[in-house]
Amino acid sequence: MNEFELIHRLTRSLPTNPSVVVGAGDDCAVLDAGIPDRLLLFKTDAVVEGVHFTPETAPEKIGYKALGRCLSDIAAMAGTPTAALVTIGLPGIFKLDFVEAIYAGLNELARRHQVAVVGGETTTNPGGIFISIALLGWVPRGKGVLRSGAEVGDAIFVTGELGGSLAGRHLDFEPRLAEARWLAQHFSLHAMLDVSDGLAGDLRHILTASRVGAELLASAIPISREARRAAKAGSAAKPPLVAALSDGEDFELLFTVASRDAVPVLDAWKKQFPGLALTCIGKIKAGEGITLRDKQGVRPLTAHGYVHFS
Amino acid sequence: MNEFELIHRLTRSLPTNPSVVVGAGDDCAVLDAGIPDRLLLFKTDAVVEGVHFTPETAPEKIGYKALGRCLSDIAAMAGTPTAALVTIGLPGIFKLDFVEAIYAGLNELARRHQVAVVGGETTTNPGGIFISIALLGWVPRGKGVLRSGAEVGDAIFVTGELGGSLAGRHLDFEPRLAEARWLAQHFSLHAMLDVSDGLAGDLRHILTASRVGAELLASAIPISREARRAAKAGSAAKPPLVAALSDGEDFELLFTVASRDAVPVLDAWKKQFPGLALTCIGKIKAGEGITLRDKQGVRPLTAHGYVHFS
Repeated sequence: MNEFELIHRLTRSLPTNPSVVVGAGDDCAVLDAGIPDRLLLFKTDAVVEGVHFTPETAPEKIGYKALGRCLSDIAAMAGTPTAALVTIGLPGIFKLDFVEAIYAGLNELARRHQVAVVGGETTTNPGGIFISIALLGWVPRGKGVLRSGAEVGDAIFVTGELGGSLAGRHLDFEPRLAEARWLAQHFSLHAMLDVSDGLAGDLRHILTASRVGAELLASAIPISREARRAAKAGSAAKPPLVAALSDGEDFELLFTVASRDAVPVLDAWKKQFPGLALTCIGKIKAGEGITLRDKQGVRPLTAHGYVHFS
Repeated sequence: MNEFELIHRLTRSLPTNPSVVVGAGDDCAVLDAGIPDRLLLFKTDAVVEGVHFTPETAPEKIGYKALGRCLSDIAAMAGTPTAALVTIGLPGIFKLDFVEAIYAGLNELARRHQVAVVGGETTTNPGGIFISIALLGWVPRGKGVLRSGAEVGDAIFVTGELGGSLAGRHLDFEPRLAEARWLAQHFSLHAMLDVSDGLAGDLRHILTASRVGAELLASAIPISREARRAAKAGSAAKPPLVAALSDGEDFELLFTVASRDAVPVLDAWKKQFPGLALTCIGKIKAGEGITLRDKQGVRPLTAHGYVHFS
């Protein structure tokens, strides 16, 4: 049983109440607090020693990553974060300087985005460091972007470059908060999320939620320098395109807009964010699943983002 | 360095913003979301295998305790909980039935209090089960009760009975949500919290936040049946009064009101909640620290809730 099957089992019949607009299954929960112009966003995310960072990771970067992942989920809804709580489980023996440095990295990122850190908890976790962040945010009513709104014919876009984030980017990525808000303000985004599980896996989340399929253009997928470099050096376990499709922890925005908006989005983006790539990588199709188009033709992508090369 | 010194170090200069009414240091954070009649409550709390429960604990009770602790913190502010996120770290090998049973216990308690469970996360935690709950709630503007409002002359009250909760009550306590809301609606509560660290330790939190001292009446402190039974059976490490002062995880309400309200509170409480004890256990004094009055006179309580018996 993989993580997604487990989550499916656990979220089949969760308690609800009238305040819930979106419950489990999107980047954030969305709650109606009775405020005329806004909805509340609510998110938790954890990083664990040995899974999301190693004993050698600089503590500032652990704190940065812990909060950054949650901020990226608020970005995926086109929201604005406001307040965070930090729960940190520590082994029986730990260095105070190390824990303070985790907080320093986290606090610096929080300040940059005007997020208040309003408390939390320290507790014991015998197996290693475990950090869970809870984050609140807001989104203008009617401007939140879910995973479920992709429509046949939509153009699929991704920000930045993908793959090879383990070389370092997974610890110092920029949550695309300003970019997501600008996009939602100026265009009708049909579906959006942040790429955490890998492009192919995350696109599949949009497709499943929207009950559609997609065709990606292999030559259009923006491959990161790290993924190319690893392939050249012979140190990569997979070709650069496969890395871009499946590595994960890119924390870039993946979204769809109506095809008539594709060129206007690109033109306006280049003026607004000249330093960050935005790439149209394919289109939403009827049916289900992902196909990849390249010089040899069109073939299906397998379940976990890997491509079978002939 | 103990937990409280660590928290003090980590919370000295946290990022803030104008929405923060109460940050780190009270039972919940309090945020002003711009809603005229209400403030937002925000809380996280974690339970860890080997610390808050054992490998033998029934999974339903683990889930119950994880959410119950957070609900008790919302109660301590006289608030109403609304939505929770569940982060659960699992060892590499786990039984699905066990995890589903954790959720079943949690969900049952959530339904009883109309709390929506709006998602969360499952992740790996090599050392054992780690559950962090994030909880949102509301409190009417002006009705939230902090730790910092105790005044000299106040009567100190506690609900229920204290001590010996490890015999079982720490896994199936009732968060005092209805009781706290009723109290805040009908009386001017000066300070309140829920007893999680033990009566003496938690009262000290009120005293420190309010810059006052307290005198407790030894004979008035309500000692639980479990603490008395353990003492009789010779299985207790401490006398029943010390257990009531220091065991912790009672999750009862500890609050202060002006002395003129003491008798009205007691009278009204007996009619409203005839099945639950409410006891006046002492009074707020000028100065600092806690003294204990018994037949032999008055003597100070030591720092961690233990009494030196002569």
